[in-house]
Amino acid sequence: MTLSQSDLRTHTTASCSTIYKNDTLTLNGESQDISTPRTQACLRALRSLRANLERTSPTALPILSTLSLKIVSNNNFPTAAGLASSAAGFAALVRAIADLYILPSSPEQLSLIARQGSGSACRSLLGGYVAWRMGSEVDGSDSIAEEIAPANHWPEMRALILIASKEKKDVSSTAGMQTTVSTSELMTRRVKDLVPRRMKDMEMAIKEKDFEKFAELTMKDSNCFHACCLDTVPPIFYMNDTSRAAVRVVDAINDHAQRKCAAYTFDAGPNAVVYYLEKDHNLVTGIFRKILPNVTGWEKEGQTENKSVTIPDGITDAMTAQLQRGTSGVILTKVDKGPTSTENHLIDEMGNTS
Amino acid sequence: MTLSQSDLRTHTTASCSTIYKNDTLTLNGESQDISTPRTQACLRALRSLRANLERTSPTALPILSTLSLKIVSNNNFPTAAGLASSAAGFAALVRAIADLYILPSSPEQLSLIARQGSGSACRSLLGGYVAWRMGSEVDGSDSIAEEIAPANHWPEMRALILIASKEKKDVSSTAGMQTTVSTSELMTRRVKDLVPRRMKDMEMAIKEKDFEKFAELTMKDSNCFHACCLDTVPPIFYMNDTSRAAVRVVDAINDHAQRKCAAYTFDAGPNAVVYYLEKDHNLVTGIFRKILPNVTGWEKEGQTENKSVTIPDGITDAMTAQLQRGTSGVILTKVDKGPTSTENHLIDEMGNTS
Repeated sequence: MTLSQSDLRTHTTASCSTIYKNDTLTLNGESQDISTPRTQACLRALRSLRANLERTSPTALPILSTLSLKIVSNNNFPTAAGLASSAAGFAALVRAIADLYILPSSPEQLSLIARQGSGSACRSLLGGYVAWRMGSEVDGSDSIAEEIAPANHWPEMRALILIASKEKKDVSSTAGMQTTVSTSELMTRRVKDLVPRRMKDMEMAIKEKDFEKFAELTMKDSNCFHACCLDTVPPIFYMNDTSRAAVRVVDAINDHAQRKCAAYTFDAGPNAVVYYLEKDHNLVTGIFRKILPNVTGWEKEGQTENKSVTIPDGITDAMTAQLQRGTSGVILTKVDKGPTSTENHLIDEMGNTS
Repeated sequence: MTLSQSDLRTHTTASCSTIYKNDTLTLNGESQDISTPRTQACLRALRSLRANLERTSPTALPILSTLSLKIVSNNNFPTAAGLASSAAGFAALVRAIADLYILPSSPEQLSLIARQGSGSACRSLLGGYVAWRMGSEVDGSDSIAEEIAPANHWPEMRALILIASKEKKDVSSTAGMQTTVSTSELMTRRVKDLVPRRMKDMEMAIKEKDFEKFAELTMKDSNCFHACCLDTVPPIFYMNDTSRAAVRVVDAINDHAQRKCAAYTFDAGPNAVVYYLEKDHNLVTGIFRKILPNVTGWEKEGQTENKSVTIPDGITDAMTAQLQRGTSGVILTKVDKGPTSTENHLIDEMGNTS
């Protein structure tokens, strides 16, 4: 699910010029190492497409493919904290350079390039509900992202993100996943049997806008993923005690409502993402806001706290205390469209950053 | 591995009398519900063996099988805190009643009865290194415990238990395991493939006294078990942030030593059990004691703290702080023999408890 750029956004400007001495990338004001194989693979693929265009175009095109690139990128959310910053970053990088090069490639084709930067980046080139297809080719050439449904198919989908920690992770998601695949014996079963079956079920749930099924699959698959992380040698722990308290609170909200109105999922970090439908906003966020009245992020909605909310019995003081101790803020967001262009560039025509 | 009764012990006295009105069980001074199917199954099986003996013995035996039982039990360690108190409890209950009834049954035969109280109780009827055989009969009649090696085969084995919490668990181990088996799709693979293979490897490691192999299997299987707990619907969390800090510290000790000199394992609770060999006592417990100088349990050895220990680089301040925050005490123990009898009874000849 692609989340709204008003809430979680990587803003990237790509430029090239004869005055640049070499390729550079600045993220949130800090110069980044661009020599990594993952970044180099993306730049090489994009330059190759541009070079091909320059060679075959019937009209003369400026030769950009050989020029050095200057790329500037800003996130409006914490980096390397399990909020998919590297997925957003590589998607924005690929999209920005593709726009600079005026490449005619489809988002699906570009997803193949972004995937080489960070696997999950491939999904972020599209909006709405997106599937990353495993593909069957040995070289991965058909492992691309595809839209399952656009955002306006099921626009009522909302997400409450509990930011459990702003600390950087000790294991990067990509490195972690590679170790899991090579050392976890449970992962074999997950990859071969469970994921393909759940992908089909999830596509159906999204197409039918069946939130209960969506919730069941989301929670089950999140737990299954983290189980495989724990089964890795040495074990990888993304969830912490605060994540576990969030799980128990969501379970208690669902028990209280006698239906699945909320679904937790955890990416490669401790932050809970809690999905719910717009109609259940007061029910779901009302309880979390009652538990966490003092963290930042609620203001956005311009709502005052709904004092009439009562905490369901299943939520113990221990859960409440742990959530309060370990949550630094919340982000309220929703499903939305994919990459968009803006006239607000981070590099001016002279190559200066603003 | 059966641990020393000097450190972790359930002391149980069973008595029967015409003056008792009904069966009673007292644990740590508190009256317990004896009507549960698990307890009833054990009592019924033991009475049936006694009745059979009374019926078939060539010499007249007193009729005890129809008398009410009074059972008193004390633990010298926290109950329901993931320290296998229910395994110890049911093993001691079965052993005490079998001794009262003078049953000729072998520990293996009694393990079949104890298993009906709490699965892992079957192992606690034997000493040293014990395997719980899955068996192949549908009715479980060949699912018993067997000795792999006696304690004196590999007497150098030590265990350091970090008591992470004295809180009662929210899910009992037996109930938790049943839910895991019925809802975790990773558990199928664990049961069918991984456990049988690892059991064979572990028996070999114990027979060959190969600590490195023992350590590798112990840690891998602990993580795999907790992965399946996490994959349960709803997920079961036994490990907490303190458990995870203990994992990282053990990994760091092994990295520092450039060999596996310590192995963590977690049962159905947050307490770490760290196995090591006697020769590595100073190395392994020295580092943990340096991190946790102020908790109870170190005194037992009569040692003063070894001030010359240095904390390896891989152990971060965050790990140290988390361990200090979440550890209430330690238990230093070792492999030892199984149930023993004592003349120190908890019920006198008049049926009074001391």
